[in-house]
Amino acid sequence: MQVNFLLFPAVTLLDLTGPYEVLARAPGVHVDLVAASMAPVRSDRGLTLLPTVTMAQARSCDLLVVPGGPGADDALLDPQWVEFTARQGAQARYIFGICTGSLLLGAAGLLRGRRAASHWLARELLAEFGATPDDSRLCVDGNVFTSGGVTSGIDMAIQVIASLFDEDTARQIQLQIEYDPAPPFSGGTPGTSPAHIVQRCREAAGARLAIRAEAVAQAARALRERS
Amino acid sequence: MQVNFLLFPAVTLLDLTGPYEVLARAPGVHVDLVAASMAPVRSDRGLTLLPTVTMAQARSCDLLVVPGGPGADDALLDPQWVEFTARQGAQARYIFGICTGSLLLGAAGLLRGRRAASHWLARELLAEFGATPDDSRLCVDGNVFTSGGVTSGIDMAIQVIASLFDEDTARQIQLQIEYDPAPPFSGGTPGTSPAHIVQRCREAAGARLAIRAEAVAQAARALRERS
Repeated sequence: MQVNFLLFPAVTLLDLTGPYEVLARAPGVHVDLVAASMAPVRSDRGLTLLPTVTMAQARSCDLLVVPGGPGADDALLDPQWVEFTARQGAQARYIFGICTGSLLLGAAGLLRGRRAASHWLARELLAEFGATPDDSRLCVDGNVFTSGGVTSGIDMAIQVIASLFDEDTARQIQLQIEYDPAPPFSGGTPGTSPAHIVQRCREAAGARLAIRAEAVAQAARALRERS
Repeated sequence: MQVNFLLFPAVTLLDLTGPYEVLARAPGVHVDLVAASMAPVRSDRGLTLLPTVTMAQARSCDLLVVPGGPGADDALLDPQWVEFTARQGAQARYIFGICTGSLLLGAAGLLRGRRAASHWLARELLAEFGATPDDSRLCVDGNVFTSGGVTSGIDMAIQVIASLFDEDTARQIQLQIEYDPAPPFSGGTPGTSPAHIVQRCREAAGARLAIRAEAVAQAARALRERS
């Protein structure tokens, strides 16, 4: 089974590495990290990863995985990434978007008429690509798996393994990575976090939200013009 | 605040990147990935990371973070890694071991008389380094934070932020990464997973367990000889 992760600059590290850790443990899986070139790619907080193939070299895949992060907003406006995502997504058996990676799936025309999840600060934007925003942590619509922000990709990757392999394989990986999560605090969603924490997150994200909204509007226009 | 992560070959990716995602989001934190050289480092399932400094260049740190994985078993027997860990650990304000990274802390003499956690398939080995194995997911003893397998590092990193900064900072990061985990299956510990899943994990890990036990025995002898 061929799994292709998109690897663009300023990806959110854990959007990619959480699902990678789960998916790469399944039997017979070959994972590639697909980038624009073979140059190292810096993630949003600085940690730098090496691609394994370029877009030009990438094999078609059974599962296309699209992480999010600030760099996804740039990728929305980059015809090379949008076209690659559309082409690979059209032939993949399954598609998996994490966090704001769902927006790139949307910009590639892959979410029209689908329910889809994204980071809580971004999910309403999915409507601009013809998707129905879903506020659940894990959203499955046909062959499209989408998850909420960052860490939800770990939960969904376990679901993907259960769907593409079987429940025992998923449970074995879950035990290998000792995934019986116990966050020291409740919260982790805008509905369950204290109001002043939600406010702090919104304020810290302010500039990013404006950039993202403009990128989505522009990408949605481009999608309509292509259709 | 200076945070140094050890980055050795065949590290388990998520042991490192889960805590990185949390810790790097705290205000004023500078994270380095410390390796033997500046060459790219391949993690255990193939994804390759770039170090930011060598052991020779590394600054002293406030928080030393030691991930686990098969490569930790090799590091236990490598005087360069053991001495570096001992030296940095002795001057750090806080120490944080994830998964079998705790074994390297033990080999460096940093866990004598301490309670400490590790991956469920490794934790009993901590006794050879004079530690008291703790079967909780998150174990705090003085300035030493240790966690169970792989994903427990995410939970503990949030606790570390709450301890070194404050609870609001931890909660803000938790909401940014939407950490309200909802694994699709219960389980994730040997006590809560079906017996045949535990058995499959033990069988899959068989060769690794033998290698690790021998490495720990040898590292424990070396520690006693140095003391």
